[in-house]
Amino acid sequence: DGQYQNICVLVRAHVSVNPAKLKSHRQRWNVRPSEMSKKTLNPIRAIVDGMKLTPNPEKPMIALSIGDPTVFGNLPTDDTVLQAMKEAIDSHKYNGYAPSVGYQKSREAVSNFYSCPEAPLEGKDVILTSGCSQAIELAISVLCNPGDNILVPRPGFSLYKTLAVSMGIQVKHYNLLPEKSWEIDLQHLESLIDDKTACLIVNNPSNPCGSVFTKDHQHKILAVASRNCIPILADEIYGDMVFPGCDFQPLAPLSSDVPILSCGGLAKCWLVPGWRMGWILIHDHNDIFGTGIREGLVKLSQRILGPCTVVQGALESILNDTPPEFYQGTISFLKSNSEICFSELSTVPGLNPVMPTGAMYIMVGIEMEHFPDFQNDVEFTERLVTEQSVFCLPATAFEYPDFFRIVVTVPEEMMIEACIRIREFCARHYRPRSQDSHDLDQ
Amino acid sequence: DGQYQNICVLVRAHVSVNPAKLKSHRQRWNVRPSEMSKKTLNPIRAIVDGMKLTPNPEKPMIALSIGDPTVFGNLPTDDTVLQAMKEAIDSHKYNGYAPSVGYQKSREAVSNFYSCPEAPLEGKDVILTSGCSQAIELAISVLCNPGDNILVPRPGFSLYKTLAVSMGIQVKHYNLLPEKSWEIDLQHLESLIDDKTACLIVNNPSNPCGSVFTKDHQHKILAVASRNCIPILADEIYGDMVFPGCDFQPLAPLSSDVPILSCGGLAKCWLVPGWRMGWILIHDHNDIFGTGIREGLVKLSQRILGPCTVVQGALESILNDTPPEFYQGTISFLKSNSEICFSELSTVPGLNPVMPTGAMYIMVGIEMEHFPDFQNDVEFTERLVTEQSVFCLPATAFEYPDFFRIVVTVPEEMMIEACIRIREFCARHYRPRSQDSHDLDQ
Ligand SMILES: Cc1ncc(COP(=O)(O)O)c(C=O)c1O
Ligand SMILES: Cc1ncc(COP(=O)(O)O)c(C=O)c1O
Repeated sequence: DGQYQNICVLVRAHVSVNPAKLKSHRQRWNVRPSEMSKKTLNPIRAIVDGMKLTPNPEKPMIALSIGDPTVFGNLPTDDTVLQAMKEAIDSHKYNGYAPSVGYQKSREAVSNFYSCPEAPLEGKDVILTSGCSQAIELAISVLCNPGDNILVPRPGFSLYKTLAVSMGIQVKHYNLLPEKSWEIDLQHLESLIDDKTACLIVNNPSNPCGSVFTKDHQHKILAVASRNCIPILADEIYGDMVFPGCDFQPLAPLSSDVPILSCGGLAKCWLVPGWRMGWILIHDHNDIFGTGIREGLVKLSQRILGPCTVVQGALESILNDTPPEFYQGTISFLKSNSEICFSELSTVPGLNPVMPTGAMYIMVGIEMEHFPDFQNDVEFTERLVTEQSVFCLPATAFEYPDFFRIVVTVPEEMMIEACIRIREFCARHYRPRSQDSHDLDQ
Repeated sequence: DGQYQNICVLVRAHVSVNPAKLKSHRQRWNVRPSEMSKKTLNPIRAIVDGMKLTPNPEKPMIALSIGDPTVFGNLPTDDTVLQAMKEAIDSHKYNGYAPSVGYQKSREAVSNFYSCPEAPLEGKDVILTSGCSQAIELAISVLCNPGDNILVPRPGFSLYKTLAVSMGIQVKHYNLLPEKSWEIDLQHLESLIDDKTACLIVNNPSNPCGSVFTKDHQHKILAVASRNCIPILADEIYGDMVFPGCDFQPLAPLSSDVPILSCGGLAKCWLVPGWRMGWILIHDHNDIFGTGIREGLVKLSQRILGPCTVVQGALESILNDTPPEFYQGTISFLKSNSEICFSELSTVPGLNPVMPTGAMYIMVGIEMEHFPDFQNDVEFTERLVTEQSVFCLPATAFEYPDFFRIVVTVPEEMMIEACIRIREFCARHYRPRSQDSHDLDQ
């Protein structure tokens, strides 16, 4: 550092500068990352980077940690989707700038796909974004000011907090209840609301829980938002990714007054997360957002100018021509793998998996009192890597200690093998509660 | 508004809520766009939206306003580029999430393309972004805090100000000198620096000027930055888009100490602005940025997770396999069109075009005192639409009144026809200066 200081002083000496001017200038290099970049914290990275992840060399690694359905090659996207991209390229029509909110035709393709009589949508109600992540970023950015707070689920997807904190927005976590299929603790939710609450984030189907809310429960969520006049950001990126026998109910058609920004994208249902195609659906039938929020979203979209035009060009065909069998195939695979994982792990002493009904995750509770070798879920999952080469994310990454999350997109054999290893691991470290042994002693 | 208030009150009445809690809750809907979204101002939109742009129905419209080389179909991208995309799709390898800063292989493709002995680059020095726009956003975000100021060129690309102001960063404009081929007024530049100056933005080749700085001038810019210890954001999106006989000199190889974030992308040289592929090259040979800035950029990239993976997959081939003839073809077309436009307009009384040496723009000065029919460049260009159906951007959009900008990517016949109409328009409205007529009277 001192070296550069010298260079600086040296250069100064060579030029004649008005000495009065020098006073307020920097006299040496001191380039520091901004507060905003320092406040942009990714809890998953922070936790994973802090873990000693040295797999057992005798067992091949099985990563059940990454929410990317494409990594094992067993869940390819549909040919229709790839064909649509190639046609968009061959058309030579999608190389120029699109409007920052997306081509009108592509916006209409999305609005047609999601419109329903109870929550009609037009092209103007759709903003195309660079992934659902940017949809969430724009939605939070337009609804919240520094000093406001937002309500986010615990356990929940970490990006909400990452974005909010970096913008100076406070995060309040409302509880999900594992014993009630991860429904929202509505009383807790409502107790958190104050006059600085700018937005309620509802994630359904849920990452990391794999849960899907009933219609009835969603009515109750809307009632809380309605009587407190809080708009909702509905993260529905896993919409329609629900198991047979269960229905996905989008939130907006149930709302009579609460305005909703519903965020989604191609990442999950179409299995192309890298393509960065997301959207915001603006549901505002009572004109509570008014033009202000819409114009705000348009302005914010002009900062980086929307998603890749080739994907935009392919969007209409992707949404309209992908055969139902494709979605069904994905879902039945996810359900089958979930059932395997659930039934395997529910007979492991010390573990309490919660059966999912959608998305691509299972949360597994750890009865920590039975695993005295480990302080917490982070240590538990760390040692699971060291001993069994199986990596699951500790749910501390979702603000929910004493659980871990399993991604169920891996090939079936891997899922089975992983469960066997988890069982072995638990068997080795499980200790009956002292209370139990005490009882036995008597 | 009153209606929704009633609904709200009604819903309240139906549920029993602790009245004490009600106090701090919102009692009616009041959803307003955030300050940040309101501060995200796009001057081009603001000016253009305020103009009455009704073309003369007898003349077909010629738009010389849009910085998108693809709109007229006369400047297609190269087949290599399209082929690379199709291969990326067919490989099935680029559908999943990439690291948020981009695939290592794609980052290395960029670093290899731009590395040179005086400013060597490796993959780790490259951050892939969603267009050059996001590159600029991340660079400003990591270098500046609210309350800081940045130095931006006048005339200059408006996004710098749009982004900075939305982040609470003050913008100070330094002058470019038309009579010196739009070189920077270095004294003016240096006079603006104070201890809150966090970054100097240098745009070379320039939008809107079409100017290209000499090596010598860039050394002087670096000297100013060096003796004031100010890092540089070099917007080099038009790099290599310079006319034969003129050389593009990237800034970084000339720097001995000043750390530089060089922003670029595929938009202009490869003629695919819609694909949203940009990058930041981190040049920091004296380790002044240190790990802080690099880590800050990585963190910021995690907010929305990088550009489309298909384009990332195609990047290596796009950079390495596009034939030199493609770039040469674009450049010679731009030069020829610029010469046509320049030579036509330089003989129009009242206009002073400045011959460009790169990029895809010409700035034309208006001797406003000779056009008493118009108050300013906005009225001038507005009436040019009404009477001649030719639309040029008033340079007020670039903070530079009494000029307008012409985009030279249009087909040659259009360029010629537009110049004829501009000549006709000026002939009709030109008035000799009163001073001149006074002289004649004597
Ligand atoms: C709940 C949830 N929302 C949003 C996203 C981000 O989606 P995208 O990849 O489209 O940005 C994810 C990704 O895992 C997610 O799990
Ligand atoms: C000087 C300058 N920088 C950056 C950009 C933005 O480039 P991109 O389209 O890659 O975001 C432009 C676009 O016109 C530009 O003129």
